[in-house]
Amino acid sequence: MSTPPLHYGQASGFILWFTGLPSSGKTSLAEALVDTLQSTMRVQLLDGDVLRHTISRDLDYSRADRLIQAERTGYVARMLAAHGVAVVVATISPYQEAREQERARAEADGLPFLDVFVEAALPTLESRDRKGLYRRVREGENLHLTGVTDPYEPPAHPDVHVRTDQEPLEVSRDRVLAAVRARGLCPPPRQA
Amino acid sequence: MSTPPLHYGQASGFILWFTGLPSSGKTSLAEALVDTLQSTMRVQLLDGDVLRHTISRDLDYSRADRLIQAERTGYVARMLAAHGVAVVVATISPYQEAREQERARAEADGLPFLDVFVEAALPTLESRDRKGLYRRVREGENLHLTGVTDPYEPPAHPDVHVRTDQEPLEVSRDRVLAAVRARGLCPPPRQA
Repeated sequence: MSTPPLHYGQASGFILWFTGLPSSGKTSLAEALVDTLQSTMRVQLLDGDVLRHTISRDLDYSRADRLIQAERTGYVARMLAAHGVAVVVATISPYQEAREQERARAEADGLPFLDVFVEAALPTLESRDRKGLYRRVREGENLHLTGVTDPYEPPAHPDVHVRTDQEPLEVSRDRVLAAVRARGLCPPPRQA
Repeated sequence: MSTPPLHYGQASGFILWFTGLPSSGKTSLAEALVDTLQSTMRVQLLDGDVLRHTISRDLDYSRADRLIQAERTGYVARMLAAHGVAVVVATISPYQEAREQERARAEADGLPFLDVFVEAALPTLESRDRKGLYRRVREGENLHLTGVTDPYEPPAHPDVHVRTDQEPLEVSRDRVLAAVRARGLCPPPRQA
């Protein structure tokens, strides 16, 4: 909250960093944010799964590689935000250290950074299981499944905390938007 | 030349890709371009040496890794250019295949791509030797020195070809700018 609100017309960039377990709804929520924001400003989605096919193809799911993944993502995010883009990052990013580092770097560059904790209880995650990861672990496969076989450190004080197992997507989206608008980071909604 | 000229006011992004041997003057020329362009539009320099400290710290100078380096650079460049940024890439990028691939990807995204071949004869490169690489190879060190111990494939038909050993920096810069302006990619110079 140390960054002063910016004026709407400047189209100032910022970073919205979604963190959460697999199947918690990060990508769906990020895409909903992108849809809404892009009517009024430049927006770029940086999805962890996509980055693993582009700038991070070499990385695995070890702690060391996940930290590198966060660093590369943060670097690209800052460059885009510095050019006035609203950057929406959707990546598990399980380590508090990595998220805090990316926040510090963004703020050092004068770029607003909001972290959004996307949470759902394990039964919900298992029932969604978009990529079949929970099933594969249940069946005995040896996978890095964050929150089950691999650590996840929830944010202690996220800027926004949404419970995707307890509210519809639109409600979560609007709560994130409200936080963004409260910081003066995007124009108010258009009149119909 | 298949991309139609764009209108000035749109601040359309594009990619200016400098290729050339070590000490040929890529970074100096790229910085001169950035200085000139940034008075009228958003500009981002992607310097190969800087990228090797950020998104490409894991890569070495093998052919395989240089191709990956070009891919990551191109990916970031396209994302920025898609948001209206003039992206100036300064990297050895010795392989024709990699440069052609990045051009094809940019043009597939509707993003103008100009390659600039930055050339100087070997005696000039050796006399500049900004990083002491030519000296170290002369002294017998086993280094990947592009153009000496490592291959360099010059562009067959670069959009611009500058000889930094035969003309001052300002002349090279203005020739690149002229090519950019001929494509309608940046506003005309401001009146004094």
